[in-house]
Amino acid sequence: MMQSAGKRLVSRVALRGARHSIAKSATQLSAKPLALAKAVPSARSVHTTAPALQVKQTAEWYRTETRGDYARLSEADIEHFKTILPENGLVTDVEDIEMFNTDWMRKFRGQTQLVLKPTSAEQVSKILSYCNDKKLAVVPQGGNTGLVGGSVPLYDEIILSLSNMNKVRSFDNVSGILVADAGVILEAADMYLAEQGFMFPLDLGAKGSCHIGGNVATNAGGLRLLRYGSLHGSVLGLEVVLANGKVVNMLSKLRKDNTGYDLKQLFIGSEGTLGVITAVSILCPQRPAAKNVAYLAVESYEKVQQAFIAAKKDLGEILSAFELMDGRSQGWVQQHCDLTRPVDTESPFFILIETAGSNKEHDDAKLEAFLEDVMEQEIVCDGVVASDETQFQNLWAWRERITEVIGKEGGVYKYDISIPLPQLYNIVDDLRAVFESKDMISKTDASKPVVDVIGYGHVGDGNLHLNIMTREYSERISQVLEPWIYEWVSKVHGSISAEHGLGLIKKHFIQYSKDEDNVYLMKQLKNAYDPNHILNPYKYI
Amino acid sequence: MMQSAGKRLVSRVALRGARHSIAKSATQLSAKPLALAKAVPSARSVHTTAPALQVKQTAEWYRTETRGDYARLSEADIEHFKTILPENGLVTDVEDIEMFNTDWMRKFRGQTQLVLKPTSAEQVSKILSYCNDKKLAVVPQGGNTGLVGGSVPLYDEIILSLSNMNKVRSFDNVSGILVADAGVILEAADMYLAEQGFMFPLDLGAKGSCHIGGNVATNAGGLRLLRYGSLHGSVLGLEVVLANGKVVNMLSKLRKDNTGYDLKQLFIGSEGTLGVITAVSILCPQRPAAKNVAYLAVESYEKVQQAFIAAKKDLGEILSAFELMDGRSQGWVQQHCDLTRPVDTESPFFILIETAGSNKEHDDAKLEAFLEDVMEQEIVCDGVVASDETQFQNLWAWRERITEVIGKEGGVYKYDISIPLPQLYNIVDDLRAVFESKDMISKTDASKPVVDVIGYGHVGDGNLHLNIMTREYSERISQVLEPWIYEWVSKVHGSISAEHGLGLIKKHFIQYSKDEDNVYLMKQLKNAYDPNHILNPYKYI
Repeated sequence: MMQSAGKRLVSRVALRGARHSIAKSATQLSAKPLALAKAVPSARSVHTTAPALQVKQTAEWYRTETRGDYARLSEADIEHFKTILPENGLVTDVEDIEMFNTDWMRKFRGQTQLVLKPTSAEQVSKILSYCNDKKLAVVPQGGNTGLVGGSVPLYDEIILSLSNMNKVRSFDNVSGILVADAGVILEAADMYLAEQGFMFPLDLGAKGSCHIGGNVATNAGGLRLLRYGSLHGSVLGLEVVLANGKVVNMLSKLRKDNTGYDLKQLFIGSEGTLGVITAVSILCPQRPAAKNVAYLAVESYEKVQQAFIAAKKDLGEILSAFELMDGRSQGWVQQHCDLTRPVDTESPFFILIETAGSNKEHDDAKLEAFLEDVMEQEIVCDGVVASDETQFQNLWAWRERITEVIGKEGGVYKYDISIPLPQLYNIVDDLRAVFESKDMISKTDASKPVVDVIGYGHVGDGNLHLNIMTREYSERISQVLEPWIYEWVSKVHGSISAEHGLGLIKKHFIQYSKDEDNVYLMKQLKNAYDPNHILNPYKYI
Repeated sequence: MMQSAGKRLVSRVALRGARHSIAKSATQLSAKPLALAKAVPSARSVHTTAPALQVKQTAEWYRTETRGDYARLSEADIEHFKTILPENGLVTDVEDIEMFNTDWMRKFRGQTQLVLKPTSAEQVSKILSYCNDKKLAVVPQGGNTGLVGGSVPLYDEIILSLSNMNKVRSFDNVSGILVADAGVILEAADMYLAEQGFMFPLDLGAKGSCHIGGNVATNAGGLRLLRYGSLHGSVLGLEVVLANGKVVNMLSKLRKDNTGYDLKQLFIGSEGTLGVITAVSILCPQRPAAKNVAYLAVESYEKVQQAFIAAKKDLGEILSAFELMDGRSQGWVQQHCDLTRPVDTESPFFILIETAGSNKEHDDAKLEAFLEDVMEQEIVCDGVVASDETQFQNLWAWRERITEVIGKEGGVYKYDISIPLPQLYNIVDDLRAVFESKDMISKTDASKPVVDVIGYGHVGDGNLHLNIMTREYSERISQVLEPWIYEWVSKVHGSISAEHGLGLIKKHFIQYSKDEDNVYLMKQLKNAYDPNHILNPYKYI
């Protein structure tokens, strides 16, 4: 169990005769008991809105891609798939199918008439081999929690759902190497590992629904990349079925293996366009014995950066997350959630800092030193430290529930960008100024199309989530946003998609982050691995 | 400066009234002051043996590959290269060229008549474009410290040395992102970073000579992969010149960028067969404020594994190396080096444990807890803890100088294998038994071809260096070793090359670690990137 770190920190600070200003801030830290709200469900599972059938079909409004020269599904095809899969492995019912056709944001909706749910790589192989021969297009689908329209069809592509491939294949509790089917849900994998004292090296808001195979296919980054690194480093092996049905076994359980090109890397982040990932081998770190979470108010973006430098120095190897939430994002969480604000102070910026380590006493001491540092230097003006698991969850809710609450006013345009740290937040202010100059933004005036522009994200990774809250999606707003945002990002040599990927809606903007030579080489790979382009067509590249 | 951790640990243990057995062990720890030997040069720079010209040409004894249908170097070619490079950019003098033709082990010697030393990617581009048109074969060469014959020609391939591309291009001291030319020496890069409070996320014995570009091209692992992970995770970007001369800019300075296939990954570990790496962008961790090194005697391999589990538990996030050296390897270091043994106890196994953290006091406490744990449980029977930088270097010398000393008896057959932890050391005993059964091994009897079989390596990564010390290289020994070793490794699903790569001598054994499908996909890539096969021919794949 977590101890009451908040209280202990205060008494220690006092004990050391810290200067008045610190002691005062420290008192404030303890003076704010956090609301003991009910367990917060994963951000993306609490959505309750219109049924899928009411969502507009993507092809009605996204007219950039016309239907390719693929075969149309026939009764004979369905009969063939019935010879590969058991009866419950095919979904054809119009209503049942819509949850697969529609993405979780209810922004994208495809027109598939068939969902296939194989239970083994061999079945995937038979399906793809047949589709490749018949030129039937296929969308591989994991938990369908993507944000760029990559996991649902645009037209009538067959959906290949990995959801029935959901077994752990092996776990070695000395090396920490897990081998599991692609369709294992991230949270389930992490809970399995928790029982053995380990953790999955990735965590993100959609953990209750997303699949580890989908995480790898989209090279998900998430909340703790800062500490546990990219999947390119932690994934040790993959089992992949190519478009032609060939099952490629790259499912190494070794940390080191320099025998040839590291082919598996190509599939990490390829969004199902080169092959279908059916299993993952991944190196999992030990679950930390101690955790701390602090939620701090910071008066300027300049000071956010100073706090980051101080955190790296004082918290060193135990820093596991450094998240930024702007004041506006926290206002929306307050408005829509049954949560008591962690601090009363109004502030343009808040940061959430997490530590994870093997020794509670040491971690508390390091956090205390950090807090003394940032308070003494007036980098941080207010804050609170979680003192038990419930408070821990509550503080994280102020970060994790942003995605959910900002959708409640209408449509949200989501951008996920990498920008060098010094300029990271500038784009939010700049974009707001653009909307203001065009008199298009107001929180209260319903005649203005834009409600708010907010920024939050993973400062430690140089990754900002830029979100434009609107009263409804409109061409007028789109035209302000694009290519303005992409040009802004390109000018500072950023990435137009830090972790969300390209999917359908970023495909045609890749040139803002990758030059012609790179795109040429990517197309060369696509043609080599999927010459008929049956895998996740209309997307990525 | 490092404090005297050894002494402090003892007094603390005593203070806490530890049981007699621990106190006794602890006393032993402090009772052995380490020899203050001179600064130990990097293992691979102290070799002084026969001049390069006396080394047999590889093609004389390695007859597996016949010379390909490449053009032969002409005077006109040399004249052309003079128009690309300044005068000192060409090496043609017979004596000067031999250090490039011969590898550091003096095992492999090529027959090149020309070494080119470009200073920019543009010059590399012009060279490769010309060579590709003329079908002149090229060997890209970094620090030439490889162990598999990958960095020198087999026949008369032109050597493209990156040694004159040795500038740091940029460093961001907030994000820790370094961009540097491929030819920067690893130790120079690390010293540059040290001045800014950072470190290179890779360290290995050859650091005084090897290039960071070569490290990336061979996906070097080294001493601290356990802590800082694989280069596939830490390399953020590359500048690469393809065989056709195209300079591909993948030199991202972003931690996150999900815009298309992660092409740079293909070049990491490709050993110069897909393109020439001319610059590297890499994420560097902060330099730890505190370090500790412990050298411990362990009575069995079973206990080595127990010590590893205890280290992961007690040292957690500060564990930065866990190295195994068998007793025989330590005997050879003692015989050939002017070093006092860290512990008197004879033991079949020794481990070297390093911690790196941000807080000396916390790290000492964690190490103390670990030592109490392993001594109390009698996992460790003797040991010593370094208490200053000199002792720190001295303890590491017992690991790092093995490579050097074992070459002093004659030829060394080197195998670098990944094996699941429980079986890791078995192969050493099994191989020794094979030589004994054939009456081929004796430390003293000069009529036996084999002197010793030793094992050491990176236990934390499941990586064993299996070395067969012989009186001279012979067909008879080779026939015992291969395919016996590869079959042994293949049976336990290990890797026949954990970190050394394939190069020339492992090329034909890839099937023991990769199946036909994988090899097919690799060849497909090679053909796509280098259709004329001018890059590092006869090797890899």
